[in-house]
Amino acid sequence: MDRLTRQINFLVEIDKLKHIGRQTLLMDGSRNENDAEHSWHLAMAVIILSEESNFQHIDMLQVIKMVLIHDIVEIDAGDTYAYDTRAHHDKQEREQKAARRIFGLLPDDQRDEMMALWEAFEAGTSDEAKLANALDRFMPILHNYRTKGRQWLKHEVTDKMVINRNKNINDGAAGLWEYVLTMIKSAVEEGMLSQDVR
Amino acid sequence: MDRLTRQINFLVEIDKLKHIGRQTLLMDGSRNENDAEHSWHLAMAVIILSEESNFQHIDMLQVIKMVLIHDIVEIDAGDTYAYDTRAHHDKQEREQKAARRIFGLLPDDQRDEMMALWEAFEAGTSDEAKLANALDRFMPILHNYRTKGRQWLKHEVTDKMVINRNKNINDGAAGLWEYVLTMIKSAVEEGMLSQDVR
Repeated sequence: MDRLTRQINFLVEIDKLKHIGRQTLLMDGSRNENDAEHSWHLAMAVIILSEESNFQHIDMLQVIKMVLIHDIVEIDAGDTYAYDTRAHHDKQEREQKAARRIFGLLPDDQRDEMMALWEAFEAGTSDEAKLANALDRFMPILHNYRTKGRQWLKHEVTDKMVINRNKNINDGAAGLWEYVLTMIKSAVEEGMLSQDVR
Repeated sequence: MDRLTRQINFLVEIDKLKHIGRQTLLMDGSRNENDAEHSWHLAMAVIILSEESNFQHIDMLQVIKMVLIHDIVEIDAGDTYAYDTRAHHDKQEREQKAARRIFGLLPDDQRDEMMALWEAFEAGTSDEAKLANALDRFMPILHNYRTKGRQWLKHEVTDKMVINRNKNINDGAAGLWEYVLTMIKSAVEEGMLSQDVR
């Protein structure tokens, strides 16, 4: 198969990301968001909020590529809800297999680039990955807050769970994490989020 | 209002792009695509097909930003179907107004950057804009081809209309335009697209 045909087959295959539903609701609460929509919105958050990054020099193109591809593995592996601890135990294995199949549709050089970007995002150790991860965690909190915590209440999520799950926002964007803490406080006060009183 | 609040209000506002329907069908034909999904898919096409560009040196970050924001004006102005010549007459005015309102939610420096990117995309004169426009035209053709021309047939689109509407793909990515011409030929042969015999 020639190079262009492989590339186009990949582009056709990833259309399926538009069918992968997430727990997050659209801002007007009308329906659940899908992974393609989320990936676009997250890339916009990178563009608009990159100045919130903890790091002075960051490869913005790499951050944007990371967030555009970070959920493609969910075409095979499905979306694993942030607070579903059971599904998380084999998440890595399922997603590794998916990455090999889907990125494997590309010419070898591009497959390797996509695999490296995805693995860097998952590892979360580079400055670029820390920022990408921070914003990936921030967006669902914003959606939950703007939809009066409907999904938090549905899944019996508490303030401590939100803090524990998302505290690595601080590693990528400390100022944004401060902002999130005020959102969580306000969400508890307004009854959108249960308070863990243990 | 402080800077971060303005930025977040903008991110909340553009969630509406997920409600703006396009004429294009998803690759499996199950439903119409929306603008947020299209913008993500187009950004992926930029990443994967940038080597098809006619230009040796191109600012990839700028091209990706352009395609991520290029349809945001449709939140107010709506999607104008490629082959709807009537709706095109006041498209520019409607979209200019929308750009001022929506990008105007941002802090001034970011508003100016987004306006400049959007205007560059619309003008289509820079190398970056030529590539962005070429891929923006290419994607719906790919969708139409992979869904057996259902939308082409529905809207009585002919091969000449597709060629006239999309020939500027050649200005951004000449090799891709060659590929498109073979797709159009094959679409006519397989009855997905009417042949203009005038």
